[in-house]
Amino acid sequence: MSDYILEKAPDASYTFGFSLKKKIFEKQSEFQKIEIFETSHHGKVLLHDGFFMLSERDEAIYHEMIAHVPLLTHGDPRKVLIIGGGDGGTAREVLRHDSVEACTMVEIDGEVVEACRKYFPEVSGALSDPRLDLIIDDGVEYLKNCTSEFDVIIIDSTDPIGPATPLFGEEFYGDVRRCLTEEGIVVAQGESPFYGLLMQEKLLGMNAGKFKWLGMYNFSNLTYPGGLWSFFFASQSKHPILDFDPDGVSAISPRSDNINMPFQYYNSDIHSGSFSLPEFQRSRLSEWTSI
Amino acid sequence: MSDYILEKAPDASYTFGFSLKKKIFEKQSEFQKIEIFETSHHGKVLLHDGFFMLSERDEAIYHEMIAHVPLLTHGDPRKVLIIGGGDGGTAREVLRHDSVEACTMVEIDGEVVEACRKYFPEVSGALSDPRLDLIIDDGVEYLKNCTSEFDVIIIDSTDPIGPATPLFGEEFYGDVRRCLTEEGIVVAQGESPFYGLLMQEKLLGMNAGKFKWLGMYNFSNLTYPGGLWSFFFASQSKHPILDFDPDGVSAISPRSDNINMPFQYYNSDIHSGSFSLPEFQRSRLSEWTSI
Repeated sequence: MSDYILEKAPDASYTFGFSLKKKIFEKQSEFQKIEIFETSHHGKVLLHDGFFMLSERDEAIYHEMIAHVPLLTHGDPRKVLIIGGGDGGTAREVLRHDSVEACTMVEIDGEVVEACRKYFPEVSGALSDPRLDLIIDDGVEYLKNCTSEFDVIIIDSTDPIGPATPLFGEEFYGDVRRCLTEEGIVVAQGESPFYGLLMQEKLLGMNAGKFKWLGMYNFSNLTYPGGLWSFFFASQSKHPILDFDPDGVSAISPRSDNINMPFQYYNSDIHSGSFSLPEFQRSRLSEWTSI
Repeated sequence: MSDYILEKAPDASYTFGFSLKKKIFEKQSEFQKIEIFETSHHGKVLLHDGFFMLSERDEAIYHEMIAHVPLLTHGDPRKVLIIGGGDGGTAREVLRHDSVEACTMVEIDGEVVEACRKYFPEVSGALSDPRLDLIIDDGVEYLKNCTSEFDVIIIDSTDPIGPATPLFGEEFYGDVRRCLTEEGIVVAQGESPFYGLLMQEKLLGMNAGKFKWLGMYNFSNLTYPGGLWSFFFASQSKHPILDFDPDGVSAISPRSDNINMPFQYYNSDIHSGSFSLPEFQRSRLSEWTSI
């Protein structure tokens, strides 16, 4: 076994990883190979098919940014839908908003949920919240048949290879739009500005003209290749900067696990600043973005 | 030889790197081991003592952000001093400002300059600009004896181990302050928010109360560990957001190598947005920052 647990790019152009203490868990589910390792400095890490999904050290960054940006832009979110998000971290951050009455989470792979309940209790703890309705099912099928409307839909998916591929498709986004309220917002895991601009172009292109406000926002973490990563943002009514009330930040409840950290990454400056895109990304996407 | 050229953290907690085509250059200078490799997808890369200094793919990001943020904040920089910056990339971006009449660059290691002149012509080309005065000398000694004043001083140093250590010291910053005009600005390579917060605290702490405007700004690249990286910013008069005129961006000249890219990363949104710090960094540094 190597001294490091390494992720390699699909095209083998780069690699990165963390020093390894031991392997904790491995299981081939119906959908993917799930592995959990203990690292020396980054806590436990979760991998699907050899790609890092999260590390205990910095998972809060991703989960804060995918949840608080749309929920605080909305201002009064009551019904939230999460597609994916099997580790529970996104649900944890969503449920810190007292306005949320019901959070539905549709995860395709029950084995991920079980592994995270056991090995990442600080991430998955909110899955026991009574406001959460956890459904183990295909999110694409769920939305196709869904007759509800949501204030915020969060697509917390893996990369567009393997089981998550349809979540980056045009038909799926048609169902997303149908299931949003008039003031509704959708955000989605949006890949790397450095390595995934083609996918960002595709996501924006298939939604161009179908939302009033359309764009990407960025954050940095240690667990995804290149560090810089994006979320897709789209809404018919709410603008993520102009309609954002910074006073809302202080109303977000403490974490359910009572960890002594209101936020690891999110704050009101970051909320707006995250929509400032590097020029190589801004210029490539400006044909479709309106934020 | 491995398939990848890898950098390992000093504490071995992480590693990352790029797929390798071949080694191009290696030399042990008086100060450090200089290596250049050709990679498969990131162009040529430069390493000092095993740490990535730049890749052709993304070097413009660092150099745009260390140069244009202070120069456009100043508004009319005529005399600029660069300490370090042996590859020439910072000088290239500084000299895109037509207001700059003289740029002095003090690099301790002439071997770095020679290697970059030969193997990175698009980075080092501006070293032949008649407005540039290249001095191969110790930047600490140079500033100690310097009787000039500069509009902008840029500390483009390696990490605070090895030859660059004194550039992170209190005495050095005393000399920096003495050699700035009243409206002068200093910026410095400021390490990683994720892995180098102690050094950021030290840099800010030793300058606290000695500048009116004091803070850090961030950017993302592929070549430094964790992706997210910081610059130190300090000035007596000019505020990097309030005194910034976005119209100045369009006045920056094209690159001297006529590459078809006005900027890879910098733009007016990024200028201001880069001062929005993640909460884990903002809260740790807020005791000293005033921006």
